[in-house]
Amino acid sequence: MGLIVQKYGGTSVKNISKIKKACLLISAEKNRGNNVVVVASAMAGYTNTMVKLAENFSKCFIPEEYDTVVSSGEQISVGLISMCLNGMGIKARSLLGWQIPIVSDENHSKAKIIRIEKKSILKLIKEDTIPVIAGFQSINPYNNRITTMGRGGSDTSAVAVAASIKADRCDIYTDVDGVYTSDPRIVKNAKKIDRISYEEMLEFASLGAKVLQTRSVEMAMRYNVKVQVLSSTSGKPGTTLVKEEKIMEKALVSGITHSKEECNITLINLQDKPGIAAKIFTPLSKANINVDMIVQTGSESRKHINFTFSLSKTDLKSALGQMNANKKIIGFQKIITNKKLAKISIVGLGMKTHSGVAQKMFSILASKKINIHVISTSEIKISVLIDEKSTESAVRALHTAFKLG
Amino acid sequence: MGLIVQKYGGTSVKNISKIKKACLLISAEKNRGNNVVVVASAMAGYTNTMVKLAENFSKCFIPEEYDTVVSSGEQISVGLISMCLNGMGIKARSLLGWQIPIVSDENHSKAKIIRIEKKSILKLIKEDTIPVIAGFQSINPYNNRITTMGRGGSDTSAVAVAASIKADRCDIYTDVDGVYTSDPRIVKNAKKIDRISYEEMLEFASLGAKVLQTRSVEMAMRYNVKVQVLSSTSGKPGTTLVKEEKIMEKALVSGITHSKEECNITLINLQDKPGIAAKIFTPLSKANINVDMIVQTGSESRKHINFTFSLSKTDLKSALGQMNANKKIIGFQKIITNKKLAKISIVGLGMKTHSGVAQKMFSILASKKINIHVISTSEIKISVLIDEKSTESAVRALHTAFKLG
Repeated sequence: MGLIVQKYGGTSVKNISKIKKACLLISAEKNRGNNVVVVASAMAGYTNTMVKLAENFSKCFIPEEYDTVVSSGEQISVGLISMCLNGMGIKARSLLGWQIPIVSDENHSKAKIIRIEKKSILKLIKEDTIPVIAGFQSINPYNNRITTMGRGGSDTSAVAVAASIKADRCDIYTDVDGVYTSDPRIVKNAKKIDRISYEEMLEFASLGAKVLQTRSVEMAMRYNVKVQVLSSTSGKPGTTLVKEEKIMEKALVSGITHSKEECNITLINLQDKPGIAAKIFTPLSKANINVDMIVQTGSESRKHINFTFSLSKTDLKSALGQMNANKKIIGFQKIITNKKLAKISIVGLGMKTHSGVAQKMFSILASKKINIHVISTSEIKISVLIDEKSTESAVRALHTAFKLG
Repeated sequence: MGLIVQKYGGTSVKNISKIKKACLLISAEKNRGNNVVVVASAMAGYTNTMVKLAENFSKCFIPEEYDTVVSSGEQISVGLISMCLNGMGIKARSLLGWQIPIVSDENHSKAKIIRIEKKSILKLIKEDTIPVIAGFQSINPYNNRITTMGRGGSDTSAVAVAASIKADRCDIYTDVDGVYTSDPRIVKNAKKIDRISYEEMLEFASLGAKVLQTRSVEMAMRYNVKVQVLSSTSGKPGTTLVKEEKIMEKALVSGITHSKEECNITLINLQDKPGIAAKIFTPLSKANINVDMIVQTGSESRKHINFTFSLSKTDLKSALGQMNANKKIIGFQKIITNKKLAKISIVGLGMKTHSGVAQKMFSILASKKINIHVISTSEIKISVLIDEKSTESAVRALHTAFKLG
C-alpha cells in the first residue's frame, strides 16, 4: 500500500464540476489500494479577486492582513472537496495551515515552511480519512497569525507535506499534461517529456515554464521527493521528476523555454570603483527584488562603466524607486529601462559534458537576425535576452535545430 | 475614556467605499477619546455565495466543512478593515475566532459561545491598537475546528465581546437607523424608537423585525450590555436597548411587527390521548425545527382532535418529512398546510399592567374584515396569524389605532 500526495491547482478545482472530477481522481487512487493525502489551491481566479481587494489599500500594505485575506481561498476549496468526498462515501476532512500546523518563518506574504507537525495528518490516514490540506498557507508561531507562501505556493506545500510524511509520490494535478520540450502554443511539434531531472526542472521552472513553482522543485530535490506533473482532465501519466542518475541518456538539450516577463535596467556612467555592485544590489535585496542577469560594461570614458541588470517586470517600479532613492550613494548619471524584452533559454543535462551548445545557439539566432542583449549561463542552461517581438521565431528555430520535435 | 464595541454588518462593509466609510466612523469614535473594538460581518452577499457553493454538496452536509467554507467571509472583511485603518494612520489588527480564541460548543453551523479569552483583545487595546474581530465565527476546542453561529451571528459575537471586556456600549451599525414602531416601507409615518427595553426588543427581533439577531438581544439582556442600533450611512444616534426600569413612560404598545415567513401545519383527526403533543414535537425538536404557535381543537367526532402549529417556511419541508415518517406513531388521518400566512404582532411593556389591548387589536382587525387563524400571547406581546394578503392593511390599521405615528 503506497502513500500518495495529490495536489490540485486552481484550474483543477475552479468550479463544482472540476471539484467533482478531482474527487473521482482521488477515489481512483484510493481504489488502486493507496492512501491519499490531498493538497489544494484556491479555485482559479479567487486569489486574484482577493489580491485586487487588498490592492485598494496598497499604500499601506500590511503583509499580515494581506495573508489573512488571501488565504481564505484555500479554506473554501478544501471545505468543498471534503464535502464532495464524504458525499461519495469517502471519509475526508479539511486541514488548514494553523490546524496541522504547518509552521513557517515570520516572513508574511512570502513565508518559508520551517516544519510540518505531521501527527495530525498521519492520525487521519490511520483512521482511513483523507486529509485535505489547504495549500499556500501556514502559521507564524510568533504572532499566531496566518502566513502565505507567495503565488504558486501550493506546489511547495504539497512537496513539503510529501517530504514530511515520506510519501511514495507527489502528484501535481494541473491544466497541462506534463512538461514539454517547449511551449506547445508556439511550437506545434513540442513533445511531452516523460522523465526530467530535478536540475533541469529547476531551470525550466525558474525560466518561465509555469508548470511548477521553483521552490517546490528545490524542495523536491533536497528531500528526494518523487514528483509527477499531470493533467486533472486526462489523469494520464505526465512528467516525472527524478534524480539525474536515473536518466540514462542525458539529452544535450531537453527543452527551450521563454519568458516575456523580463525587463532591463541600465545605470549609465558609474565610477569604476570597488564595491559598486554591492551599493546597487543591497537596496534591491532589502526590497526583496530578485535580479536575474547582470552585465557590467565599459563606458565612453575609461573611468566609467555601465551596469545592466534584468528583473521581473512586476518589480520594475519598485527597483527604479530604490535606484533613484540611492542615486547619490551609487553615483550614476542616468537610468535607461527596456521593457520589451524576452528571455529564451535552452536547458539540458548534456551540456555539462558537451561543449559547443552555446555556439550553436548563438549561430541559430544570428541566422534569424535576432540580436542578443545579454547572455547568462549555468552548468545546464544558457539564457539570452532578446527583443520581445522575436520570441516565437527564436523558440521555433532553436526547437528545430536541437531536434526536439 | 470609554470602551466602545462597534459592530459593522454586511451592508456596512459591502464594498471598499463602505469599508472606508466604516473606518471613518471608527476614527471618529477614537477621536472622541474612546477605545474602540471592532466586530465585522462578511461583505454583504459573500456568505450567500459561500452557502450556495456548499449547497452543491447538501446531500452529504458536513457542518464542520460548511463552517470552514462560510467563515472565510469575515476573514476577508477584518483583513481589509485593518489595512484601511492602518492606511489612515490608526493602528489596528485583525483577530479571527481561533486566534482570540472565542470558544464555542461543538454545535457546528449553529454554535453557541462558551467563553472569550479576552486577554488578546485587552492586550491590543493597551498597545493602542484597534482589535478588528471576525464576527460569526468561533472555535470548537474539542476538534480544533472553526465553528459558526448561524446567520446573523455577528450581532451575538459583538454583544459577547462587549460583555466579556465590559464595554461601555455596543454600537451595532447597520443599514437602518434604528428600530421603528413599524416597517417604514409599509407604514409611512412609522417613527424611530429612541429607547426600547430588552424585553420588547426581544419580541421585536423574534417577531420578524430583522434589526438584531434574537440571541444577541438575549445575551445583551443577560449581561446588561448597553446596545445601540444605528446607521452606518448617517452615523446618527439610533435606538438604544436599556433595562425596563430605565424607561419611565411605558408605552402600551411600542410597535407593530409582521413576518411573512410563517406557515401552518394542521394534523387532522388524531386520537385524543395523553402524550400526543410529545409524539408530535419530539421528532420536530430532534430535527432542530422551531415551532411557534400551537393550537389544539376539537374535531367532528368527540374522540378526535385537530392539531395546528406554525413554523418558519424554511422548515416546512423538513417538518412534513418528520410528520410523515412518524405518521403511525402520531396517528393522524391527513395533513393540511397553509403557506399563505403572515404573523402580525403588537409589542409593548405597558401590556403587563393594562388590560384590553388584545380586545382592541381583535376589534380593529375585525373592522377591517381580517380573519384571525391563530392567536398567541406573552406578557408584552400579542401575535396573530392572518392571511398573507392582509398584512399591509392590518399593520397600517393597528399602527394608527394605537397612535404610533
